[in-house]
Amino acid sequence: MNTRRQFLSVSATLAAASQLAPHSFAADSDRKLGFALVGLGRLSTNQIAPALQKTKNCKLAGIVTGSPEKAEAWQKQYGISQKSTYNYRNFDQIADNPDIDVVYVVLPNSMHEEFTIRAARAGKHVLCEKPMSVSVAEAKQMTSECEKAKVKLAIGYRCQFEPHHIECMRMAKEKRFGAIRQIDASFGFRFGDYPLGDLRRWRLEMEYAGGGALMDVGIYALQACRYLTGEEPKSVMAREIKTDHEKFAEVDETILWSMDFPSGIVANCSTTYGFSGMNQFTAYADNGKFGMEPAFSYEGNRAFAGNSTIEKPQIDQFAAEMDDFANVIRTDSKSKVSGEEGLRDMIVMDAIYKSVASGKSRKIS
Amino acid sequence: MNTRRQFLSVSATLAAASQLAPHSFAADSDRKLGFALVGLGRLSTNQIAPALQKTKNCKLAGIVTGSPEKAEAWQKQYGISQKSTYNYRNFDQIADNPDIDVVYVVLPNSMHEEFTIRAARAGKHVLCEKPMSVSVAEAKQMTSECEKAKVKLAIGYRCQFEPHHIECMRMAKEKRFGAIRQIDASFGFRFGDYPLGDLRRWRLEMEYAGGGALMDVGIYALQACRYLTGEEPKSVMAREIKTDHEKFAEVDETILWSMDFPSGIVANCSTTYGFSGMNQFTAYADNGKFGMEPAFSYEGNRAFAGNSTIEKPQIDQFAAEMDDFANVIRTDSKSKVSGEEGLRDMIVMDAIYKSVASGKSRKIS
Repeated sequence: MNTRRQFLSVSATLAAASQLAPHSFAADSDRKLGFALVGLGRLSTNQIAPALQKTKNCKLAGIVTGSPEKAEAWQKQYGISQKSTYNYRNFDQIADNPDIDVVYVVLPNSMHEEFTIRAARAGKHVLCEKPMSVSVAEAKQMTSECEKAKVKLAIGYRCQFEPHHIECMRMAKEKRFGAIRQIDASFGFRFGDYPLGDLRRWRLEMEYAGGGALMDVGIYALQACRYLTGEEPKSVMAREIKTDHEKFAEVDETILWSMDFPSGIVANCSTTYGFSGMNQFTAYADNGKFGMEPAFSYEGNRAFAGNSTIEKPQIDQFAAEMDDFANVIRTDSKSKVSGEEGLRDMIVMDAIYKSVASGKSRKIS
Repeated sequence: MNTRRQFLSVSATLAAASQLAPHSFAADSDRKLGFALVGLGRLSTNQIAPALQKTKNCKLAGIVTGSPEKAEAWQKQYGISQKSTYNYRNFDQIADNPDIDVVYVVLPNSMHEEFTIRAARAGKHVLCEKPMSVSVAEAKQMTSECEKAKVKLAIGYRCQFEPHHIECMRMAKEKRFGAIRQIDASFGFRFGDYPLGDLRRWRLEMEYAGGGALMDVGIYALQACRYLTGEEPKSVMAREIKTDHEKFAEVDETILWSMDFPSGIVANCSTTYGFSGMNQFTAYADNGKFGMEPAFSYEGNRAFAGNSTIEKPQIDQFAAEMDDFANVIRTDSKSKVSGEEGLRDMIVMDAIYKSVASGKSRKIS
């Protein structure tokens, strides 16, 4: 069909695949990029697969799951062939599948690194859900492997494609209300009391999640502060509050943290698994404020500037994120939600956890 | 006219005056209580004097000012006689004025103690603006002197009389959304660049203000956390951010602090003189949130519970505060904004400043 496909059907050696990959699409720009979803949990089922149907330039072309039942159900629902269905053991054979251009990693956090790297080594571009990994070292390994394999790596920061967020970023950058002085940002929800054995409980286990509320939802507040300021925090001060020591024996329940940015902006953030309702950010600038509430939901987000409501279209953030990644691949450009962007969040979250542990402010170099 | 008045015209010895004072009104409950305003600055001019016209049980009966020009203007505008006009030197003669029941101290913070005590010693009930004083020791002295003189002491916590605040207190107490888990509260404004000599600059001078944004407006956020929880914080952790070292050479510009309450509630607060817009609180409870924004304005405050707006009457908070104090005096009851209430805030603010200075969490005993 095209050079790349012919090549991939023959060999999956990294260097050659990645030299060819970015160029092949330019010559074939009408073809939708084939996405394989790795991990068919709730996010894939309820958000990403439906979103793929709404994309302009992407299609669901493959699945990777450990469950034969899920495989069968998805094959039926989405018309996926057996040859584009993988499990975690034979996943690497995806290198030979010319219908798959992108692997979207939607697994528990601790599996992000492994499958990102395996996908990269298979010559596939990788979209990886947030948090990028469970450690800074892993995140570095991921960016480095994707670079080596010359595949694109992007992190599932859907909010960066949401029109109200984009408008807030614009107001921040253009100093609509003057320089930002303080940002309050928080995101949390009450983690359900799921019975033992319920798959959702992986988020409570350090082995799978690598962290609690901060890694899962606090990261949205952190991201917002970073993309509103356009700066990297130079230090963080954080504390943890735990009220349910049984449920949250392994991971953080509630963390409050502040971040100091080089320009003097202070961010005041919270995240929790203990209660619902925190889902907002406010940027206080010299002459006014703007922000969002709810800010980080899949739908229904709202923004304000001063006393006015900002009306922007409600879109499918996952669809926008995937179409953007398709565009990044086609144009061989850099994603605004690149692996480096994910790595920066991992560095800050690592500092937050270290500040919690030490009770002291933590510099970020 | 009544026993107390006859008495006061003869002698101002404290013990006798205060034994009689609370009882005399019960027998004369239709008479409006006479208020003397000490300090005729912007707050007295723009808020308190107009509010007095709206009260049911109070009237403007006297003024205390260092400015003969102001005295003349106020005498004309409000029909105040020369005999009910005092300056700061002859103020103690107010003891002999039967038309004055209450002294409302509206002076710079560092003068609150002196004039509260002088008023108490003159046998007058005292309403004192917030912050009650500039130190814990002063606040204790004030409560003790008012107790000794058997006069009522209340602090100008107007928000405790505002219907939306009262509704939020009710929701907190009745656990409308379950137990509160976290409160975010903030109040601040951009302190103007007034030229040297502008009287408003007293707030920038430690000698007059005793502190900056925290003492002036942060106290509203602190109050809200205390009356929503119904608890006293057991510890605080605070930090200060200063961007304008010239303007805020003496007093705090921005302080962020958190408070831990005995039940486990955490409050996350900010205050500033550096920028506008922070004027809200949100209480996050097990099953929902409620709060206000704007929360601490003289008018136009709004409250929400879950996704609903709470509609309560817009009232004159100062009028309500003064009518309540009149009622406290008439019924010889305890004000909900008593001197002890003011003292508690002073204790917490003292701990906040000490935490800022030490960089460490500070226990409150």
